[in-house]
Amino acid sequence: MRDFTYYNPTRIEFGKDKEKQIGNYISEYKIKKVLITYGSDRIKKSGLFDKVTASLTAQGIEYLELGGIQSNPLLSKVHEGIQLAKKEKVDALLAVGGGSVLDSTKGIAAGACYDGDVWDFYTFTATIEKALPVFDIITLAATGSEMNSFAVLTNEKTKQKYYIASPFVFPKVSVINPELQKSVSKEYLVYSAVDVIAHSIEGYFTATYQSEIVCSYIETNIKAAIRTAEILLKDPDNYDARGEFAWAATQALNGSTYTGVEGATSPNHMIEHDISALYNVPHGAGLSVVIPAWMKWYYKQNEEQFKRFAEEVFGLNSAVEGIEALENWFKKIGSPTRLSEFDIKESELEKIAQNVEGNTKYFGLSEKYNKAKVLEILKLAL
Amino acid sequence: MRDFTYYNPTRIEFGKDKEKQIGNYISEYKIKKVLITYGSDRIKKSGLFDKVTASLTAQGIEYLELGGIQSNPLLSKVHEGIQLAKKEKVDALLAVGGGSVLDSTKGIAAGACYDGDVWDFYTFTATIEKALPVFDIITLAATGSEMNSFAVLTNEKTKQKYYIASPFVFPKVSVINPELQKSVSKEYLVYSAVDVIAHSIEGYFTATYQSEIVCSYIETNIKAAIRTAEILLKDPDNYDARGEFAWAATQALNGSTYTGVEGATSPNHMIEHDISALYNVPHGAGLSVVIPAWMKWYYKQNEEQFKRFAEEVFGLNSAVEGIEALENWFKKIGSPTRLSEFDIKESELEKIAQNVEGNTKYFGLSEKYNKAKVLEILKLAL
Repeated sequence: MRDFTYYNPTRIEFGKDKEKQIGNYISEYKIKKVLITYGSDRIKKSGLFDKVTASLTAQGIEYLELGGIQSNPLLSKVHEGIQLAKKEKVDALLAVGGGSVLDSTKGIAAGACYDGDVWDFYTFTATIEKALPVFDIITLAATGSEMNSFAVLTNEKTKQKYYIASPFVFPKVSVINPELQKSVSKEYLVYSAVDVIAHSIEGYFTATYQSEIVCSYIETNIKAAIRTAEILLKDPDNYDARGEFAWAATQALNGSTYTGVEGATSPNHMIEHDISALYNVPHGAGLSVVIPAWMKWYYKQNEEQFKRFAEEVFGLNSAVEGIEALENWFKKIGSPTRLSEFDIKESELEKIAQNVEGNTKYFGLSEKYNKAKVLEILKLAL
Repeated sequence: MRDFTYYNPTRIEFGKDKEKQIGNYISEYKIKKVLITYGSDRIKKSGLFDKVTASLTAQGIEYLELGGIQSNPLLSKVHEGIQLAKKEKVDALLAVGGGSVLDSTKGIAAGACYDGDVWDFYTFTATIEKALPVFDIITLAATGSEMNSFAVLTNEKTKQKYYIASPFVFPKVSVINPELQKSVSKEYLVYSAVDVIAHSIEGYFTATYQSEIVCSYIETNIKAAIRTAEILLKDPDNYDARGEFAWAATQALNGSTYTGVEGATSPNHMIEHDISALYNVPHGAGLSVVIPAWMKWYYKQNEEQFKRFAEEVFGLNSAVEGIEALENWFKKIGSPTRLSEFDIKESELEKIAQNVEGNTKYFGLSEKYNKAKVLEILKLAL
């Protein structure tokens, strides 16, 4: 194990009907007024919004709302949320939705305590020193945002999809009720599985030092995501599988699989962010295109670990077979594996690679990736 | 997964020389005066005490000390610490040592904020509502106390070894420097490995519901403890193995392996506590005697899981073979597996079983265990 700091103060409230207690959880923090953030009106039609507001009201907590947050969430919406939070002087934020809603909410939480433009945090030109407390009810398992200090946001003007990382944006309490995640479409279930695998493999393959114990935790998470996604595609009501899928998603990016690791980077996320900033493809769909291409391009730099992956996850004997198996699994569950599936043509690769090059510094990858190398990877994804 | 709450706010500072930063970590909490608690004078001879106090002094933190805490720590010593903490009005406690030192320190932390007798907390006749902040530098990996809300203590007058569990006694910051753990004797390394395995198997075998993902995390921890203990017995200076061993110990009882589990209990700990309360045997040594006996007595109640254990941990095919393999491994590393190794005779089993019976209610096991059943188990350990 290499030196590390591990700190994760988020309280997880996992299980059936836990969303009905959200008012109680929030009132423990002496909070009187919250801004509820969400995506589409689906949470109103399903009755979830009413359950949440009833619980708040029962605890004497005032609320207002901000809906309409979209996938690959936008800076403009976060600006709107910040303005509202400041004007209405809310004490806290409550995200009800998936990773995009929660990530936007983290941006609003930080921006509401800052006089400048919140985008400064994403370009690392300012540091978050304060944020409103964030609570959430996570309705889609994938990003792990419910138990980490990260958030991603797209600046639609500059076509940059960048991230923040700050201990101030750890959620105070996250509700994970697997039953609420049943309503996720098959398509998004598949993209979620890809995202969990993506969070798992980045450190697993790129680390210059990795312990046996952490490798084994990562393999456990990958196998859990594969196994439970397959069950859920056939039987969406399987509560146990839904629960394990949700917990694998949380574990895959709550820091536990990055303990004692040295030199881990996230090249697949870097490249995917720049594709979805330009083409607004779902994050998981973008990842299932990038990952097999990146693996083919990269594996010789760490062939032993790729061989281990093949053996442990798929029971196969070589690095190349493991890469093929993962790509075939993405195809089998219906996730895209080629840029052509997004109607992206070879002539556009230059533009994407250019965008990635501008992003390398934020991912600490300026020395390892440049436009030419990214082009090589993208060509393998055509 | 069954419903659960997961909350673990302890910050881990893991790695070389981190103990030299302890003053900085503590000063982040605006603390001005600490009580340093420790066991033998070994930490003074090794220079660790000087490093710690230099770091405190550099941050302007005043300190006083309480040494002489022994294994199977005693209530009388905790009383002494509480008196000192109250008299000197310390703001926080800093444990420098192993699980016994840290557990005593948690008791002092709670007792210093309470007007009654701290033992009330251990007999569940009072609830901890406040505690002084606890920091620690853990010099022996085993109990997991560095990242949990538990502490065990022996009342030497009543021969009761009982525990507390309270979110107020989570350490604020725990320093884990594997290099500091090199000084642990072979004997205690072996007992530590047994303790890590014990923390892992209690829930694994007794739960009435267990998820695949959590079973796999537990198996990872057990295999890590076995693998790294074997390396360290031959090569105590192996830093990587020392680090993984320490992290496996922390993970085995930080709550992560109890997420979503239903009906998990700790019968081996219960029985061992009553043996060491009476005979003052090292906790790990007591466990390696109790565990094989308990496994033989219990396995038919959950044979599939015992079979899984045999397969996953030892590559064997039956429950009985798995039990034998674990017992043989305890023998191989030099940990006792028979009560006779403590000079405990059959005529004394009655007294032990009687003591266990008084303890069942604190372990939630009044309905599952009684004197007669405990006697059956103890006879298998003769």
